[in-house]
Amino acid sequence: MMPMNEFALIKRYFERSDADKSDHSGAVLEAPIQGVVQGIGDDCAVLSTDPDYETVMSTDTLISGVHFPENSDPRLTAQRALRVNLSDIAAMGGQPSAFLLALTLPELNETWLEGFSLGLRQVSDAYCCPLVGGDTIRGPLNITISILGTVPRGRALFRGGAQVGDAIYVTGCLGDSAAGLGLLDSPVQGDGSEARSVGYLKKRYWQPSPRVSEGLILRDYASAAIDISDGLLADLGHILRASLVGAELTLASIPLSAPLVDTWAKTKAMTLALTGGDDYELCFTVPTDKVAMLELKVREGLLSAHRIGEISAKEGLICRDVNGIVVDFSDAGYQHF
Amino acid sequence: MMPMNEFALIKRYFERSDADKSDHSGAVLEAPIQGVVQGIGDDCAVLSTDPDYETVMSTDTLISGVHFPENSDPRLTAQRALRVNLSDIAAMGGQPSAFLLALTLPELNETWLEGFSLGLRQVSDAYCCPLVGGDTIRGPLNITISILGTVPRGRALFRGGAQVGDAIYVTGCLGDSAAGLGLLDSPVQGDGSEARSVGYLKKRYWQPSPRVSEGLILRDYASAAIDISDGLLADLGHILRASLVGAELTLASIPLSAPLVDTWAKTKAMTLALTGGDDYELCFTVPTDKVAMLELKVREGLLSAHRIGEISAKEGLICRDVNGIVVDFSDAGYQHF
Repeated sequence: MMPMNEFALIKRYFERSDADKSDHSGAVLEAPIQGVVQGIGDDCAVLSTDPDYETVMSTDTLISGVHFPENSDPRLTAQRALRVNLSDIAAMGGQPSAFLLALTLPELNETWLEGFSLGLRQVSDAYCCPLVGGDTIRGPLNITISILGTVPRGRALFRGGAQVGDAIYVTGCLGDSAAGLGLLDSPVQGDGSEARSVGYLKKRYWQPSPRVSEGLILRDYASAAIDISDGLLADLGHILRASLVGAELTLASIPLSAPLVDTWAKTKAMTLALTGGDDYELCFTVPTDKVAMLELKVREGLLSAHRIGEISAKEGLICRDVNGIVVDFSDAGYQHF
Repeated sequence: MMPMNEFALIKRYFERSDADKSDHSGAVLEAPIQGVVQGIGDDCAVLSTDPDYETVMSTDTLISGVHFPENSDPRLTAQRALRVNLSDIAAMGGQPSAFLLALTLPELNETWLEGFSLGLRQVSDAYCCPLVGGDTIRGPLNITISILGTVPRGRALFRGGAQVGDAIYVTGCLGDSAAGLGLLDSPVQGDGSEARSVGYLKKRYWQPSPRVSEGLILRDYASAAIDISDGLLADLGHILRASLVGAELTLASIPLSAPLVDTWAKTKAMTLALTGGDDYELCFTVPTDKVAMLELKVREGLLSAHRIGEISAKEGLICRDVNGIVVDFSDAGYQHF
């Protein structure tokens, strides 16, 4: 194979024809606010921003052996990388606009690049969030995505807005992704209920659902929000520290999926739900005067969310079982170092 | 040493007190257009954008052994990483706003982090471009910066705007950085002219000057612009392909610094100037009716730039020596793969 330079490589796999661009499946509720004036192919991408909106932005790195197993399917790896970044935009109540990809590759493997660029495009299309630039170099595999989004001026959801008395909610179910990670090497055999559960949990690891449309709704209701990347206790802990408050959680209210409960004993399932990372659900707080309206959205099926506890004045995070007894979970989430 | 988690690490080295923030030395001509509503510490940074401006953004990765020697001074490494990214903003005629840092580190080395964060802050201050967020993980050293800037609506400088007859210019002198890279292991002994030359060339490698203020001026004059990261011939080649034109360069007009000419034979110096990377000067084209005004800016000392050739209709890039003879430079710049 002839050596290819960076430019040819980017052009082949990551640029797209105008025909491709029409394939937006529209997983979000609003059209993008930031228009792409210039995408891939110049020193910078150029975006125009509606004056009534602010820009939100974030960056996340995934590396092999830490954030996904070595020799993973490149399509799933790409999807996970972009979904994880979209989740940060969702946690701000943001609408995704565009992303940059800094890709460090150990070798120019065209099969890998084909799968990776396909996976990236599938998620990019689903969330109307185009790739607008990047950098590709040779070195130990490192996937760094930087993502931009918009929120109406002054409406971003921060970690620091929780008030004493606010209800605490989470979207979706917790613990699935951590359970899925533990099952990645388990083959899915047959189509029995156990196989379906394993398949579901693995999918939740590889294809977490960034809660973008939920985040847009939450702008009207939430006082604080965060996405759950390091485990509920760790991430809710960030809200508590930023808001200078405490919290009490009711363990019986933590939403657990049927496949999780079917696969693991109750205590293990709860531990995964509280301390397992990678769920990319949202944890958010709602002032009491907005709880009824939020619950209405949930009943209308516009938002999958469960109330799991309350913000308290007393510093710290307390978990109570069904009898009101305090339960200790000492392993408080994934430690990066 | 106790293991620290990501959050404590980021807090210690990269967050800054309000007192620190006042230390802007003002290397750029305008105050930043994008205001930082929320910096480090939430799921995303939030920026407000003036409605008369567009956002420009870019990402660049530096890894050890490729973009800087292993075991390099962390302060210089950080400076180089941010300067290289600022150069992309400069090439668009952009005003830097803010940047994100995705840092993959093999170990938690506090001495390294201290030097790195200091170097980053020094350049960040000089260019009024604050760090507003990032990600820090453990793995093979990888420094990925994503940078944002602004340009007045519709005024960004692209690669594709060169027209037949336009004059071709470069800022500063070329080849110094590539020469400096070759001398990194040479000790600077004494204070003689040879030592001063070596010191100058090494500094040009480690501390390239992103031409931000020049880029702001060029908005009024340039039809196309690019920063020279892969060598003049390679990067001018991007302008030619994007603009569907050719070019003729006059080798005698290529600006070479005295230290470069003192250190290397003439042919080698010229080869470094044409094909050596990492100069981070700007190459730009100017329509004939704006050349006189541009030259006035140069004479007034507002812009260091040299006219080196002309855009032609005939495809390709031709270099002529002082006798008009075509000279071939087959090694057309740094190949990433």
